[in-house]
Amino acid sequence: MNIYNSVLEKAKKANSAARILSNISTDIKNKALTKMAEELKNNKEGILRANALDLENAKNSGKNNAFIDRLTLNEERINSMAQGLVKVASLPDPIGEVMKMWKKSNGLNIGKVRVPLGTIGIIYEARPNVTVDAAALCLKSGNSVILKGGSEAVNSNLAIYNTISRAAIEAGLPEGSIEFIDITERKAVEILMKLNKYVDVLIPRGGSGLINSVVENSTVPVIETGIGNCHVYVDDSADLTMAENIVINAKTQRPGVCNAMETLLVHKDAAENFIPHLGETLSKMGVEIRGCARTQKLIPAIKLATEEDYAEEFLDLILAVKVVDSLDEALNHIYKYGTKHSEAIITNNYTSSQRFLREVDAAAVYVNASTRFTDGEEFGFGAEIGISTQKLHTRGPMGLNELTTVKYIVYGEGQIRE
Amino acid sequence: MNIYNSVLEKAKKANSAARILSNISTDIKNKALTKMAEELKNNKEGILRANALDLENAKNSGKNNAFIDRLTLNEERINSMAQGLVKVASLPDPIGEVMKMWKKSNGLNIGKVRVPLGTIGIIYEARPNVTVDAAALCLKSGNSVILKGGSEAVNSNLAIYNTISRAAIEAGLPEGSIEFIDITERKAVEILMKLNKYVDVLIPRGGSGLINSVVENSTVPVIETGIGNCHVYVDDSADLTMAENIVINAKTQRPGVCNAMETLLVHKDAAENFIPHLGETLSKMGVEIRGCARTQKLIPAIKLATEEDYAEEFLDLILAVKVVDSLDEALNHIYKYGTKHSEAIITNNYTSSQRFLREVDAAAVYVNASTRFTDGEEFGFGAEIGISTQKLHTRGPMGLNELTTVKYIVYGEGQIRE
Repeated sequence: MNIYNSVLEKAKKANSAARILSNISTDIKNKALTKMAEELKNNKEGILRANALDLENAKNSGKNNAFIDRLTLNEERINSMAQGLVKVASLPDPIGEVMKMWKKSNGLNIGKVRVPLGTIGIIYEARPNVTVDAAALCLKSGNSVILKGGSEAVNSNLAIYNTISRAAIEAGLPEGSIEFIDITERKAVEILMKLNKYVDVLIPRGGSGLINSVVENSTVPVIETGIGNCHVYVDDSADLTMAENIVINAKTQRPGVCNAMETLLVHKDAAENFIPHLGETLSKMGVEIRGCARTQKLIPAIKLATEEDYAEEFLDLILAVKVVDSLDEALNHIYKYGTKHSEAIITNNYTSSQRFLREVDAAAVYVNASTRFTDGEEFGFGAEIGISTQKLHTRGPMGLNELTTVKYIVYGEGQIRE
Repeated sequence: MNIYNSVLEKAKKANSAARILSNISTDIKNKALTKMAEELKNNKEGILRANALDLENAKNSGKNNAFIDRLTLNEERINSMAQGLVKVASLPDPIGEVMKMWKKSNGLNIGKVRVPLGTIGIIYEARPNVTVDAAALCLKSGNSVILKGGSEAVNSNLAIYNTISRAAIEAGLPEGSIEFIDITERKAVEILMKLNKYVDVLIPRGGSGLINSVVENSTVPVIETGIGNCHVYVDDSADLTMAENIVINAKTQRPGVCNAMETLLVHKDAAENFIPHLGETLSKMGVEIRGCARTQKLIPAIKLATEEDYAEEFLDLILAVKVVDSLDEALNHIYKYGTKHSEAIITNNYTSSQRFLREVDAAAVYVNASTRFTDGEEFGFGAEIGISTQKLHTRGPMGLNELTTVKYIVYGEGQIRE
């Protein structure tokens, strides 16, 4: 079969499965998730063998350590994937909730009901755990899922897919509930991005290259995830100990993720008391600071920050620092360079806190807390398929509810429109 | 200025205005809408003069009567546009609503707040009233709007735009709140569809050609609207008088709109008692019936329905009729040919009604009521910018709430992530 027909067949199968999945009982979905978890553990050896193949190829082609780390599976990581499945099984089923119901003067009862999106395509990089996480969340919310993982993980993904897909079907989910595109040619993704008739949504998960390419080329509706050039602004009224704790947390607790802080803005009246001590602490922790001229005066050893530094999502132990004259200058800086992901103000001034919350346009806006909290688990959603940085459909962490849409159900007694 | 720069400039202006609009008071927005209504009435003559130009051009280029009708303005229609503005001013402001707020165990208070989408592009055909309706709904929901109407209405639209835009700014809205693309070259739309940095959402309003072209070519997120191949299924247990009333209403009350019915499905046990009488009534009303072989036996004069007839959105006094053996056959037919817009069952059987509501995947699913009710006004939303037939973001009639997104606001006391 040629690539086009192969991708089309998978999309059609997933689309047919979606029709059944949308009305399948919560019990069957949970049984399937639990069985998927068991079988993952039972097939650990096969999965690790497949992973070893991918790892060997990755090393031979000179991939860096971070890449190898993300690709690597071991017993602990497989157990953790299985635990994730059990966790999703324990979450409430979002489907069928009547969010609202009202009666019109003509007697019509109109209800707004939560229903699945249908068929969701997930395009991701060489992280085999996404195969399991994404499938779990899509199935629990009544969607079928088409998985297209990074080609460097194809052996690991295929072993995982075969295991969880068989388990799902044995537990009573329809064939096609999980489809996996094992074609490594780029063309497979290009085809998937045009199958509007069979795929309801695409969610790209990965770096900005992957995400931009899907946004630019897909005719299927896309939920854009994950790019975060996040700021912390330290106001002149800030508690500077609190500010230092939050800055250190936001920058260093896990620098490679999208809700980590990339630029620090400091009010000029707080700069002298705040920046030198912070600079020392961060240096000890291995953070490279790139600052504006005023920051440089307070920490002479650092490089001057460029325009590019302010625009960059470092995803690394690098921090841009800028001293600003006012809250307004901070707001303008964030408006200019921010990616509308997560932004924080550290302040003890009521008006500043309210203005920041109101005027910053981002998925999550914080007062006196670390940007690192933008996360489905931390928000209490139980799990997360990604963080939406677009405005359409949903914004911020996406849990099960965000993988649903609505349908209006109308109970009549013969009403016609006048 | 070349076309690219001209469209870019307008998008940038609208995007800057959106930043201010997102936090402007409800009072100012309402004052602007009211002033826009007044000025529309004050400038009636100028608008009608511009419209006369468009009408002359349209007639000279041989446009049909339906086209001319949609393009035509008169005193009554301008008054009705003005009334629409006043109506939107009277609707509650959706912005700033805290939809939910909860406290996490670490003390973080997380709130989900309704905020504007940002900058909305509306691409529509030669219907000058859309210029006013779309601007009103976008502004009330705190969005700036970029209008691109059909080139055949450019003089009417420009006259309307100049009037309402000046009024809006005089009332205190920022410059750029309403932008109008007066370039009639197709290229202008192509440029607009790629300006992801400045435009948050595009909503195409019009026929399937326009909508498909936007869906296929836009990298800006799109809300797809309006194509409806709607069915009414008459179950064997239906009250046949009710069924006839609903079928007549759904087909003939306004055949040219997306929620009108296009295909009637009749259970075989109801066919004999239902179809001949209905056929007679519909014939008298000028409806052409195209039926399956079993329908033909009951109304011998009609044409045989083809596959194409079942797939077609006639938007005209034409009805496809098919006799089915069971509810399942009806559900399969709707699954195969439906466009997920509005679907109705006429039944007195509890199980059939529940299965239809659950198993039909459409924006609105009806029991014992006309499909014509799928409408923002009829649903109680006060107004409507279109009917979403996609699943992402929203589905069904879109009122003010559907032109918003969310932002999470987080109140902390120094929390950092462990």
